[in-house]
Amino acid sequence: MVMQKGFTIWFTGLSGAGKTTLSNLLHHRLQERGVTNVEVLDGDVVRTHLSKGLGFTKEDRDTNIRRIGWVAHLLTKHKVPNLVSAISPYREVRDEVRMMVEHSGGKGSFIEVFVDCPVCECEKRDVKGLYAKARKGELKQFTGIDDPYEEPHRPEVHIRTNEATPDEGVEMIINHLKTHGLI
Amino acid sequence: MVMQKGFTIWFTGLSGAGKTTLSNLLHHRLQERGVTNVEVLDGDVVRTHLSKGLGFTKEDRDTNIRRIGWVAHLLTKHKVPNLVSAISPYREVRDEVRMMVEHSGGKGSFIEVFVDCPVCECEKRDVKGLYAKARKGELKQFTGIDDPYEEPHRPEVHIRTNEATPDEGVEMIINHLKTHGLI
Repeated sequence: MVMQKGFTIWFTGLSGAGKTTLSNLLHHRLQERGVTNVEVLDGDVVRTHLSKGLGFTKEDRDTNIRRIGWVAHLLTKHKVPNLVSAISPYREVRDEVRMMVEHSGGKGSFIEVFVDCPVCECEKRDVKGLYAKARKGELKQFTGIDDPYEEPHRPEVHIRTNEATPDEGVEMIINHLKTHGLI
Repeated sequence: MVMQKGFTIWFTGLSGAGKTTLSNLLHHRLQERGVTNVEVLDGDVVRTHLSKGLGFTKEDRDTNIRRIGWVAHLLTKHKVPNLVSAISPYREVRDEVRMMVEHSGGKGSFIEVFVDCPVCECEKRDVKGLYAKARKGELKQFTGIDDPYEEPHRPEVHIRTNEATPDEGVEMIINHLKTHGLI
Protein backbone atom coordinates (compact mmCIF):
# COMPACT_ATOMS: atom_id res chain seq x y z
CA MET A 1 0.00 0.00 0.00
CA VAL A 2 1.48 3.31 -1.10
CA MET A 3 0.94 6.13 1.34
CA GLN A 4 -1.04 8.89 -0.33
CA LYS A 5 0.59 12.31 -0.18
CA GLY A 6 -1.43 15.37 0.69
CA PHE A 7 -1.75 18.23 -1.77
CA THR A 8 -3.96 21.18 -2.61
CA ILE A 9 -5.13 21.81 -6.15
CA TRP A 10 -6.12 25.47 -6.19
CA PHE A 11 -8.34 26.44 -9.13
CA THR A 12 -8.34 30.21 -9.62
CA GLY A 13 -10.13 32.15 -12.35
CA LEU A 14 -13.17 34.17 -13.30
CA SER A 15 -16.71 33.14 -12.53
CA GLY A 16 -17.81 30.82 -15.33
CA ALA A 17 -14.26 30.01 -16.47
CA GLY A 18 -14.77 26.33 -15.65
CA LYS A 19 -13.24 25.85 -12.18
CA THR A 20 -16.02 23.65 -10.79
CA THR A 21 -16.27 21.59 -13.99
CA LEU A 22 -12.54 20.83 -13.88
CA SER A 23 -12.61 20.15 -10.15
CA ASN A 24 -15.46 17.66 -10.42
CA LEU A 25 -13.93 15.89 -13.38
CA LEU A 26 -10.53 15.71 -11.68
CA HIS A 27 -12.22 14.30 -8.56
CA HIS A 28 -13.77 11.59 -10.75
CA ARG A 29 -10.47 10.78 -12.49
CA LEU A 30 -8.62 10.56 -9.18
CA GLN A 31 -11.22 8.16 -7.82
CA GLU A 32 -10.79 5.98 -10.92
CA ARG A 33 -7.08 5.87 -10.12
CA GLY A 34 -7.79 4.70 -6.57
CA VAL A 35 -7.24 8.04 -4.85
CA THR A 36 -10.46 7.89 -2.89
CA ASN A 37 -9.91 10.23 0.05
CA VAL A 38 -10.21 13.47 -1.89
CA GLU A 39 -12.05 16.46 -0.45
CA VAL A 40 -13.69 18.94 -2.83
CA LEU A 41 -13.98 22.45 -1.43
CA ASP A 42 -16.15 24.66 -3.58
CA GLY A 43 -15.69 28.35 -2.88
CA ASP A 44 -19.39 29.15 -2.86
CA VAL A 45 -20.20 26.29 -0.49
CA VAL A 46 -17.28 26.97 1.82
CA ARG A 47 -18.28 30.63 1.97
CA THR A 48 -21.62 29.70 3.57
CA HIS A 49 -19.82 27.60 6.20
CA LEU A 50 -16.87 29.82 7.02
CA SER A 51 -17.60 33.32 5.84
CA LYS A 52 -21.28 34.10 6.13
CA GLY A 53 -21.59 37.85 6.53
CA LEU A 54 -18.45 38.66 4.59
CA GLY A 55 -18.85 40.67 1.39
CA PHE A 56 -16.75 41.24 -1.69
CA THR A 57 -14.40 44.05 -0.75
CA LYS A 58 -10.72 43.19 -1.14
CA GLU A 59 -10.43 42.77 2.61
CA ASP A 60 -13.42 40.44 2.88
CA ARG A 61 -12.37 38.41 -0.13
CA ASP A 62 -8.88 38.01 1.33
CA THR A 63 -10.28 36.90 4.67
CA ASN A 64 -12.47 34.33 2.95
CA ILE A 65 -9.54 32.97 0.94
CA ARG A 66 -7.33 32.80 4.05
CA ARG A 67 -9.99 30.70 5.79
CA ILE A 68 -10.36 28.31 2.88
CA GLY A 69 -6.58 28.16 2.70
CA TRP A 70 -6.32 27.32 6.38
CA VAL A 71 -8.71 24.38 5.91
CA ALA A 72 -6.80 23.27 2.79
CA HIS A 73 -3.52 23.34 4.73
CA LEU A 74 -5.06 21.18 7.51
CA LEU A 75 -6.23 18.61 4.97
CA THR A 76 -2.89 18.59 3.15
CA LYS A 77 -1.09 18.22 6.48
CA HIS A 78 -3.13 15.06 7.13
CA LYS A 79 -2.52 13.68 3.63
CA VAL A 80 -5.98 14.38 2.30
CA PRO A 81 -5.77 15.57 -1.32
CA ASN A 82 -8.09 18.55 -1.67
CA LEU A 83 -9.46 20.45 -4.64
CA VAL A 84 -10.37 24.08 -4.06
CA SER A 85 -12.34 26.20 -6.54
CA ALA A 86 -12.41 29.86 -5.67
CA ILE A 87 -12.16 32.96 -7.87
CA SER A 88 -9.43 34.16 -5.45
CA PRO A 89 -8.66 37.24 -7.56
CA TYR A 90 -5.73 38.60 -5.54
CA ARG A 91 -2.23 37.27 -6.13
CA GLU A 92 -0.79 38.17 -2.77
CA VAL A 93 -3.28 36.19 -0.70
CA ARG A 94 -3.02 33.21 -3.06
CA ASP A 95 0.73 33.25 -2.43
CA GLU A 96 0.07 33.47 1.29
CA VAL A 97 -2.08 30.32 1.06
CA ARG A 98 0.63 28.63 -0.99
CA MET A 99 3.15 29.26 1.80
CA MET A 100 0.76 27.96 4.45
CA VAL A 101 0.03 24.75 2.50
CA GLU A 102 3.67 24.13 1.59
CA HIS A 103 4.65 24.71 5.19
CA SER A 104 2.66 21.63 6.22
CA GLY A 105 2.64 19.57 3.03
CA GLY A 106 6.13 20.32 1.74
CA LYS A 107 7.37 22.10 -1.36
CA GLY A 108 5.24 21.25 -4.37
CA SER A 109 2.14 20.36 -2.36
CA PHE A 110 0.33 23.50 -3.55
CA ILE A 111 -0.64 23.33 -7.21
CA GLU A 112 -2.07 26.56 -8.57
CA VAL A 113 -4.23 25.92 -11.60
CA PHE A 114 -5.02 29.04 -13.61
CA VAL A 115 -8.42 28.43 -15.19
CA ASP A 116 -8.01 30.98 -17.95
CA CYS A 117 -10.92 32.15 -20.04
CA PRO A 118 -11.49 35.61 -21.54
CA VAL A 119 -14.16 37.55 -19.73
CA CYS A 120 -16.15 37.96 -22.97
CA GLU A 121 -16.35 34.18 -23.25
CA CYS A 122 -17.35 33.72 -19.58
CA GLU A 123 -19.96 36.38 -20.13
CA LYS A 124 -21.27 34.61 -23.23
CA ARG A 125 -21.67 31.35 -21.26
CA ASP A 126 -23.04 33.12 -18.14
CA VAL A 127 -24.22 29.81 -16.67
CA LYS A 128 -25.50 31.40 -13.46
CA GLY A 129 -26.76 34.62 -15.06
CA LEU A 130 -24.40 36.62 -12.87
CA TYR A 131 -22.68 38.62 -15.63
CA ALA A 132 -26.03 39.92 -16.86
CA LYS A 133 -26.80 41.09 -13.34
CA ALA A 134 -23.35 42.66 -13.01
CA ARG A 135 -23.78 44.53 -16.32
CA LYS A 136 -27.13 45.85 -15.11
CA GLY A 137 -25.44 46.99 -11.90
CA GLU A 138 -27.52 44.63 -9.79
CA LEU A 139 -24.32 42.92 -8.62
CA LYS A 140 -21.51 45.20 -7.53
CA GLN A 141 -17.81 44.32 -7.22
CA PHE A 142 -18.08 41.54 -9.74
CA THR A 143 -14.68 40.12 -10.69
CA GLY A 144 -13.84 40.87 -14.31
CA ILE A 145 -16.53 43.53 -14.65
CA ASP A 146 -15.98 46.16 -11.96
CA ASP A 147 -13.51 44.32 -9.74
CA PRO A 148 -9.98 43.22 -10.61
CA TYR A 149 -8.59 39.76 -11.34
CA GLU A 150 -4.85 39.38 -10.95
CA GLU A 151 -3.56 36.55 -13.13
CA PRO A 152 -1.03 34.14 -11.63
CA HIS A 153 2.55 34.80 -12.73
CA ARG A 154 3.77 31.23 -12.61
CA PRO A 155 0.87 28.83 -12.10
CA GLU A 156 1.84 25.16 -11.98
CA VAL A 157 -0.84 24.45 -14.58
CA HIS A 158 -2.36 26.92 -17.05
CA ILE A 159 -5.56 25.78 -18.74
CA ARG A 160 -7.18 27.88 -21.45
CA THR A 161 -10.74 26.62 -21.19
CA ASN A 162 -11.86 28.26 -24.41
CA GLU A 163 -9.31 26.11 -26.26
CA ALA A 164 -8.91 22.90 -24.24
CA THR A 165 -11.76 20.49 -23.41
CA PRO A 166 -12.34 19.64 -19.74
CA ASP A 167 -10.79 16.22 -20.39
CA GLU A 168 -7.67 17.80 -21.86
CA GLY A 169 -7.46 20.24 -18.95
CA VAL A 170 -7.73 17.50 -16.35
CA GLU A 171 -5.10 15.49 -18.22
CA MET A 172 -2.68 18.41 -17.80
CA ILE A 173 -3.24 18.35 -14.04
CA ILE A 174 -2.93 14.56 -13.84
CA ASN A 175 0.36 14.80 -15.73
CA HIS A 176 1.65 17.40 -13.31
CA LEU A 177 0.69 15.20 -10.34
CA LYS A 178 2.37 12.16 -11.88
CA THR A 179 5.53 14.03 -12.84
CA HIS A 180 5.85 15.33 -9.29
CA GLY A 181 5.20 11.99 -7.61
CA LEU A 182 1.97 13.09 -6.00
CA ILE A 183 -0.11 10.25 -7.47
CA MET B 1 -2.07 -2.18 9.66
CA VAL B 2 -5.31 -1.22 11.36
CA MET B 3 -7.17 1.62 9.68
CA GLN B 4 -7.58 4.49 12.13
CA LYS B 5 -11.14 5.67 12.60
CA GLY B 6 -11.96 9.34 12.64
CA PHE B 7 -13.51 10.93 15.69
CA THR B 8 -13.96 14.29 17.36
CA ILE B 9 -13.25 14.75 21.06
CA TRP B 10 -15.14 17.90 22.00
CA PHE B 11 -13.98 19.47 25.27
CA THR B 12 -16.59 21.89 26.61
CA GLY B 13 -16.46 23.84 29.85
CA LEU B 14 -15.64 27.14 31.50
CA SER B 15 -12.50 29.10 30.86
CA GLY B 16 -9.83 27.68 33.16
CA ALA B 17 -11.64 24.39 33.75
CA GLY B 18 -8.79 22.45 32.18
CA LYS B 19 -9.85 21.81 28.56
CA THR B 20 -6.47 22.61 26.99
CA THR B 21 -4.54 20.70 29.66
CA LEU B 22 -6.64 17.59 29.04
CA SER B 23 -6.48 17.99 25.27
CA ASN B 24 -2.68 18.28 25.25
CA LEU B 25 -2.22 15.33 27.59
CA LEU B 26 -4.64 13.21 25.56
CA HIS B 27 -2.75 14.14 22.40
CA HIS B 28 0.45 12.93 24.05
CA ARG B 29 -1.14 9.67 25.24
CA LEU B 30 -2.59 8.95 21.79
CA GLN B 31 0.80 9.48 20.18
CA GLU B 32 2.31 7.02 22.67
CA ARG B 33 -0.30 4.49 21.52
CA GLY B 34 0.70 5.01 17.89
CA VAL B 35 -2.20 7.25 16.92
CA THR B 36 -0.01 9.85 15.27
CA ASN B 37 -2.31 11.71 12.89
CA VAL B 38 -4.20 13.67 15.54
CA GLU B 39 -5.16 17.30 15.00
CA VAL B 40 -5.52 19.59 18.01
CA LEU B 41 -7.93 22.47 17.46
CA ASP B 42 -7.75 25.00 20.24
CA GLY B 43 -10.75 27.32 20.35
CA ASP B 44 -8.69 30.47 20.84
CA VAL B 45 -6.35 29.64 17.98
CA VAL B 46 -9.09 28.57 15.62
CA ARG B 47 -10.97 31.77 16.38
CA THR B 48 -8.13 33.83 14.94
CA HIS B 49 -8.15 31.77 11.74
CA LEU B 50 -11.88 31.37 11.16
CA SER B 51 -13.72 33.98 13.16
CA LYS B 52 -11.71 37.15 13.42
CA GLY B 53 -14.17 39.98 13.87
CA LEU B 54 -16.77 37.88 15.65
CA GLY B 55 -17.62 38.80 19.23
CA PHE B 56 -19.20 37.02 22.16
CA THR B 57 -22.92 37.47 21.64
CA LYS B 58 -24.86 34.21 21.49
CA GLU B 59 -25.12 34.55 17.73
CA ASP B 60 -21.40 35.15 17.23
CA ARG B 61 -20.41 32.38 19.61
CA ASP B 62 -22.74 29.98 17.78
CA THR B 63 -21.28 30.97 14.41
CA ASN B 64 -17.76 30.40 15.72
CA ILE B 65 -18.69 26.96 17.07
CA ARG B 66 -20.41 25.97 13.83
CA ARG B 67 -17.22 26.84 11.91
CA ILE B 68 -14.99 24.83 14.24
CA GLY B 69 -17.55 22.03 14.02
CA TRP B 70 -17.48 22.11 10.25
CA VAL B 71 -13.68 21.70 10.27
CA ALA B 72 -13.95 18.91 12.86
CA HIS B 73 -16.48 17.09 10.68
CA LEU B 74 -14.15 17.33 7.66
CA LEU B 75 -11.27 15.86 9.64
CA THR B 76 -13.43 13.08 11.09
CA LYS B 77 -14.75 12.31 7.60
CA HIS B 78 -11.16 11.76 6.47
CA LYS B 79 -10.27 9.61 9.49
CA VAL B 80 -8.21 12.23 11.28
CA PRO B 81 -8.87 12.09 15.04
CA ASN B 82 -9.30 15.63 16.26
CA LEU B 83 -9.39 17.22 19.70
CA VAL B 84 -11.37 20.44 20.03
CA SER B 85 -11.24 22.70 23.09
CA ALA B 86 -13.86 25.40 23.08
CA ILE B 87 -16.01 26.83 25.86
CA SER B 88 -19.01 26.26 23.54
CA PRO B 89 -21.52 27.32 26.19
CA TYR B 90 -24.71 26.61 24.25
CA ARG B 91 -26.19 23.13 24.22
CA GLU B 92 -28.14 23.47 21.00
CA VAL B 93 -25.19 24.34 18.79
CA ARG B 94 -23.06 21.63 20.41
CA ASP B 95 -25.79 19.16 19.45
CA GLU B 96 -25.83 20.60 15.95
CA VAL B 97 -22.08 19.95 15.67
CA ARG B 98 -22.59 16.43 17.03
CA MET B 99 -25.07 15.71 14.23
CA MET B 100 -22.72 17.11 11.60
CA VAL B 101 -19.76 15.02 12.84
CA GLU B 102 -21.80 11.83 13.23
CA HIS B 103 -23.25 12.34 9.78
CA SER B 104 -19.78 11.90 8.27
CA GLY B 105 -18.00 9.84 10.92
CA GLY B 106 -20.85 7.56 12.00
CA LYS B 107 -22.69 7.20 15.28
CA GLY B 108 -20.29 7.45 18.21
CA SER B 109 -17.70 9.50 16.37
CA PHE B 110 -18.53 12.61 18.40
CA ILE B 111 -17.39 12.38 21.99
CA GLU B 112 -18.53 15.25 24.17
CA VAL B 113 -16.28 15.67 27.19
CA PHE B 114 -17.73 17.86 29.89
CA VAL B 115 -14.76 19.50 31.62
CA ASP B 116 -16.58 20.31 34.81
CA CYS B 117 -15.17 22.69 37.38
CA PRO B 118 -17.05 25.08 39.67
CA VAL B 119 -16.72 28.68 38.59
CA CYS B 120 -15.28 29.63 42.01
CA GLU B 121 -12.45 27.16 41.43
CA CYS B 122 -11.77 28.39 37.88
CA GLU B 123 -11.75 31.89 39.25
CA LYS B 124 -9.29 30.92 41.97
CA ARG B 125 -6.91 29.45 39.37
CA ASP B 126 -7.48 32.30 36.87
CA VAL B 127 -4.46 31.24 34.82
CA LYS B 128 -4.98 33.92 32.18
CA GLY B 129 -6.20 36.63 34.55
CA LEU B 130 -9.49 36.81 32.67
CA TYR B 131 -11.82 36.30 35.64
CA ALA B 132 -10.27 39.26 37.43
CA LYS B 133 -10.88 41.39 34.35
CA ALA B 134 -14.44 40.11 34.07
CA ARG B 135 -15.16 40.93 37.72
CA LYS B 136 -13.84 44.44 37.17
CA GLY B 137 -16.14 44.74 34.17
CA GLU B 138 -13.21 45.09 31.77
CA LEU B 139 -14.38 41.95 29.95
CA LYS B 140 -18.07 41.73 29.14
CA GLN B 141 -20.09 38.63 28.30
CA PHE B 142 -17.69 36.37 30.15
CA THR B 143 -19.01 32.80 30.43
CA GLY B 144 -19.79 31.90 34.04
CA ILE B 145 -19.74 35.52 35.21
CA ASP B 146 -22.22 37.50 33.14
CA ASP B 147 -22.88 35.01 30.34
CA PRO B 148 -24.51 31.58 30.61
CA TYR B 149 -22.98 28.12 30.41
CA GLU B 150 -25.39 25.31 29.59
CA GLU B 151 -24.09 22.01 30.97
CA PRO B 152 -24.30 18.94 28.73
CA HIS B 153 -27.18 16.61 29.61
CA ARG B 154 -25.54 13.36 28.58
CA PRO B 155 -21.85 13.91 27.81
CA GLU B 156 -19.97 10.77 26.80
CA VAL B 157 -17.34 11.61 29.42
CA HIS B 158 -17.78 13.79 32.49
CA ILE B 159 -14.57 14.90 34.20
CA ARG B 160 -14.65 16.87 37.44
CA THR B 161 -11.29 18.57 37.24
CA ASN B 162 -11.37 19.77 40.84
CA GLU B 163 -11.46 16.11 41.91
CA ALA B 164 -9.65 14.12 39.22
CA THR B 165 -6.05 14.67 38.14
CA PRO B 166 -5.39 15.33 34.44
CA ASP B 167 -4.02 11.78 34.15
CA GLU B 168 -7.18 10.32 35.64
CA GLY B 169 -9.32 12.46 33.35
CA VAL B 170 -7.45 11.40 30.24
CA GLU B 171 -7.69 7.77 31.36
CA MET B 172 -11.50 8.14 31.36
CA ILE B 173 -11.42 9.32 27.76
CA ILE B 174 -8.98 6.59 26.68
CA ASN B 175 -11.27 4.01 28.27
CA HIS B 176 -14.24 5.39 26.37
CA LEU B 177 -12.31 5.26 23.09
CA LYS B 178 -11.18 1.69 23.75
CA THR B 179 -14.64 0.50 24.79
CA HIS B 180 -16.11 1.94 21.61
CA GLY B 181 -13.46 0.52 19.30
CA LEU B 182 -12.12 3.91 18.30
CA ILE B 183 -8.53 3.14 19.27
